Amino acid sequence: VTARRATRAELDELRRLIGRRSSRVQAGRFVIEGPVFVADAVDAGLNIGPVFVERSMLDRVPSGVEIALCDDGVLAKVLDAVTPQPIATTAALLTSDASTLTDSTFVLVCDQISDPGNLGTIIRAAEAAGADAVVVTPGTVDVHSPKVVRSTAGSLFRVPIVECALAEVRLAGLRLVATSSHARTNYDEVNWADPVAIVMGNEAHGLSHESLARCDVLIAISHAGRAESLNVAMAASIVAFEVLRHRRST
Amino acid sequence: VTARRATRAELDELRRLIGRRSSRVQAGRFVIEGPVFVADAVDAGLNIGPVFVERSMLDRVPSGVEIALCDDGVLAKVLDAVTPQPIATTAALLTSDASTLTDSTFVLVCDQISDPGNLGTIIRAAEAAGADAVVVTPGTVDVHSPKVVRSTAGSLFRVPIVECALAEVRLAGLRLVATSSHARTNYDEVNWADPVAIVMGNEAHGLSHESLARCDVLIAISHAGRAESLNVAMAASIVAFEVLRHRRST
Repeated sequence: VTARRATRAELDELRRLIGRRSSRVQAGRFVIEGPVFVADAVDAGLNIGPVFVERSMLDRVPSGVEIALCDDGVLAKVLDAVTPQPIATTAALLTSDASTLTDSTFVLVCDQISDPGNLGTIIRAAEAAGADAVVVTPGTVDVHSPKVVRSTAGSLFRVPIVECALAEVRLAGLRLVATSSHARTNYDEVNWADPVAIVMGNEAHGLSHESLARCDVLIAISHAGRAESLNVAMAASIVAFEVLRHRRST
Repeated sequence: VTARRATRAELDELRRLIGRRSSRVQAGRFVIEGPVFVADAVDAGLNIGPVFVERSMLDRVPSGVEIALCDDGVLAKVLDAVTPQPIATTAALLTSDASTLTDSTFVLVCDQISDPGNLGTIIRAAEAAGADAVVVTPGTVDVHSPKVVRSTAGSLFRVPIVECALAEVRLAGLRLVATSSHARTNYDEVNWADPVAIVMGNEAHGLSHESLARCDVLIAISHAGRAESLNVAMAASIVAFEVLRHRRST
C-alpha cells in the first residue's frame, strides 16, 4: 500500500463537510467516519474519495483505496464523534429525487423529523423491514449529517433516500398512511398489500395540518401506558414490521 | 411557595449521586433532572426529596414540594445533561427483587445490556406493550444512571424494575424466550398466551452461552437487510408489540 500525506486543504474541506449542511450541498459530498462505516461504504459499492487515516489505523483501511496519511491527533480534532477513531472518507451525497419511487411498493416517509438518532433508526428499520426507500421531506434533519450517518449503522449506504415533498410521494402512486392516536383502525387491521408510504411526523409537534390533509388513511398503534411512551422511531419499526409480516404471510 | 437555599452539602451529594453508581447504592437514592421528568416523578407518585432549582425555573416546580433554591449556574455544573435545565430532585432507588415477578405474565429481561439509550428505550417499549416489569441482570448498565433515566422518558417511574439473575426469572414461572438468528420459529408463530419473559442480550456479544442455556425457546425475527440492521431496542419493541397484539386478539 502506498500512502501520500493529506493536505491542509483536504482537511479543511473535511471539517467544512462535517460541520455544515450548506458545505455538503455545495460540494455534493459528505463524510463517513470510523473504520466500520468506511468498510460498510466500500462494501455497499459507494465511490469513496481518499481515506484519511492515522498510522495507528492503517490496518483498518479497506484494500484498493487511495490513502491520505494524517499526523497523530489531527483527525480527532476534525471529526464529529465524541470518541473519534482516526479514519474517515467522503462520498457523493446519496439522496435522489421522487423519480426513484417509481415501482416502489413500500416506503417510510420522515416528515420534519428533527432528531438525528430517530432519523437514523428509521432508516435502519426501513432496511430491516425491506422498504424500497426512505423519503425525507424539507424540514427534516440532514440525512448526511455525521450524527445521522452514524445512527443508521450503515443502512444509509444500502437504502435509497429520496428528498421530495409529501405530494410527490402520493403522485408516485403510494397510499399515504399516518399514525394518529385518534384513528379507529389499528395498525394490524390494515390490508398492507397495496403500495404504501408510512408517514412519520415531527417528534414534538406530530404531523402538520397540511401533511395530515394529504394522508389517505390514519391508523392507531394501540398500546398501554402513556401516549408518549412510544417514540417515533419505535412506532416506525412496529408498523414497518407489521407490513413485512403481513406481506410475508399473504 | 416558601423556598430555602440549597446547602453546599446537598449539592455535593447531588453531584455524587449523578456521577457514581456506588454513591447511589450507598445512599439508596438517584437523581431526576429537568422539569418534565421532575413532574413525571411527582405524577407517578414517587416520594421525592427537595427540588433543587434556579430562580428562572421556579414556575416549573410541581406544587406541594420542598424547594431548595440554587444560585444561577450552580446546578448546570452539577447536572449530567449536555444542555441542563436547572431543576432536579432525588428519589429512592426504584429497583426491587424477584418477588415482584409473582403473578407477572409478561416481562422484558435486559441481560447485560450496556448502552443507556437501549436500556431506556426497552423500558419505554415495556410500558407501551403493557409488560408487568423489566428485569435487569447483573452486568447491565445502571438503570438509575442519568442517561438511562432520561432515555426512559418517564417510563422508569411507572414500570416495575427488578434486579435479579436469569435463573430467578425462570423460578418465577416465566418461560424464557430469546431471539436468535439461527432459530427456526419466527416471532409471529409463537403462542404468546403463556407467562413469558423475553430476554435481550448484550449489543455487541449477544446472549452469553450460560444465558442461552437457560432459555426455553429461541425465536427469530425474520427481516430483510443485514443481520445488524435491527438493534436490540428495536427488536425488543417489535417482539413486545407482537405479544400485546397476540394477547389482545385472542
